[in-house]
Amino acid sequence: MKMEAFTVENVPLIKEGDDIASIICDNAEIKDYDIIVIASTIVAKSEGRVFRLEDIEAGEKAKEIASRHDLDPEFIQAVLDRSNEVLMEFPILLVETKNGHVCIKAGIDESNVEGGYLADLPEDPDSSAENIGKAVEMNTSKKVSVIVTDTNGRAFKIGQTGIAVGLYMIHPILNWVGKKDLFGNELEITQEAVADEIAGAANLLMGEGDGGCPVVIIRGLKLRSEDSTSVKEMYRTDREDLIKKGLRCLRDS
Amino acid sequence: MKMEAFTVENVPLIKEGDDIASIICDNAEIKDYDIIVIASTIVAKSEGRVFRLEDIEAGEKAKEIASRHDLDPEFIQAVLDRSNEVLMEFPILLVETKNGHVCIKAGIDESNVEGGYLADLPEDPDSSAENIGKAVEMNTSKKVSVIVTDTNGRAFKIGQTGIAVGLYMIHPILNWVGKKDLFGNELEITQEAVADEIAGAANLLMGEGDGGCPVVIIRGLKLRSEDSTSVKEMYRTDREDLIKKGLRCLRDS
Repeated sequence: MKMEAFTVENVPLIKEGDDIASIICDNAEIKDYDIIVIASTIVAKSEGRVFRLEDIEAGEKAKEIASRHDLDPEFIQAVLDRSNEVLMEFPILLVETKNGHVCIKAGIDESNVEGGYLADLPEDPDSSAENIGKAVEMNTSKKVSVIVTDTNGRAFKIGQTGIAVGLYMIHPILNWVGKKDLFGNELEITQEAVADEIAGAANLLMGEGDGGCPVVIIRGLKLRSEDSTSVKEMYRTDREDLIKKGLRCLRDS
Repeated sequence: MKMEAFTVENVPLIKEGDDIASIICDNAEIKDYDIIVIASTIVAKSEGRVFRLEDIEAGEKAKEIASRHDLDPEFIQAVLDRSNEVLMEFPILLVETKNGHVCIKAGIDESNVEGGYLADLPEDPDSSAENIGKAVEMNTSKKVSVIVTDTNGRAFKIGQTGIAVGLYMIHPILNWVGKKDLFGNELEITQEAVADEIAGAANLLMGEGDGGCPVVIIRGLKLRSEDSTSVKEMYRTDREDLIKKGLRCLRDS
């Protein structure tokens, strides 16, 4: 079995209104079952999801958090506006976003944006993935999947990996339920987080710096779904999320 | 930029004493800078790291934990023998292993092993990776890296991904420190967990079930290190691990 991953070359600096699907189709030959992996920053920029701190007025809670940790109240307000819950204030500002994604600073990106501006995550990353995916399919008559990605830290280990924040026609989890292992025993580990594994693979080619390539195509996997998909399928429910419970315990003690 | 990943075909069922390096060299044409990704299960098996519960005598602590949660005391004892600390007993038995790796059940694998036997993680996975890597380099005169992998769950999201548990000639983290973004701003996200991203990419091809391919080669990345490497470079120190603190808070409250 074989998989290829390659960057789409000549993607220009993206600005509001740019048509990412057309740019991809102009610069890569798309095949059936390709998985198109796109950095959320360019999706957000094309959707005009950039903002300036000077346009934000900090409320009481933002001011409180900011003063406790010597942070910028307008920035804290921007994070709160995009969050369901603050899981930790300091030393990292860890929140659950309105979309249910747990990340630092609500995914607001201070890099790769023109001076003075900050980039949001796309407002509804599944819809963003769908819009781009459908446009690529219209342009090419090929069946594709799309993964919009960000980078995230993780528990117990330093470093960030690419992760999926929005999906089109690929489920985040591949179920091995009921399958047998080499010796006919029922498999114990049964859910593979394929969308995050693909996002991580693509991130190896994207780079983080000024040589950044925000679009990567993954070819050779047969993971296109038959039905519609959402990144939210992989978010743990509050009740079963033991790490969140631990962080709340720490926060409230 | 382009990356290829492919499975090494015809890897037989591995048993104690099998020479994994020779099996890889016989079944794949290795090139310079290839990253050879190997499932820890076959490494452990080749090293004879399998055991039976009936050979274990459970101590007081194992019996206590087992009776609280209706679990098997001998199995709990096997986990305790391999652990520095139990971070959570139930509903998942989450521990830090003697190697500093946080995982469920100390990584003891109940699948893909002959009936009655359980498979350990390799005792020192960095050494296992080094042994295989050096033997491949001797056989082929090519310079390679090796990643021994397992699968792990993660915080906030369901599903497991492939992760690195042992490394040869590849650092787990790629530092982007001091690099500039597209607009000349200092990058904020600075540490990419490349070994885990590669392990995840390989896991997409390995499969979990009876079609499993335990060896994958990743080609096209220039990540071979100049100096010796260890997976432990990416484990957070106890002092800075906030999620561990949260889990202890929950455990001890």
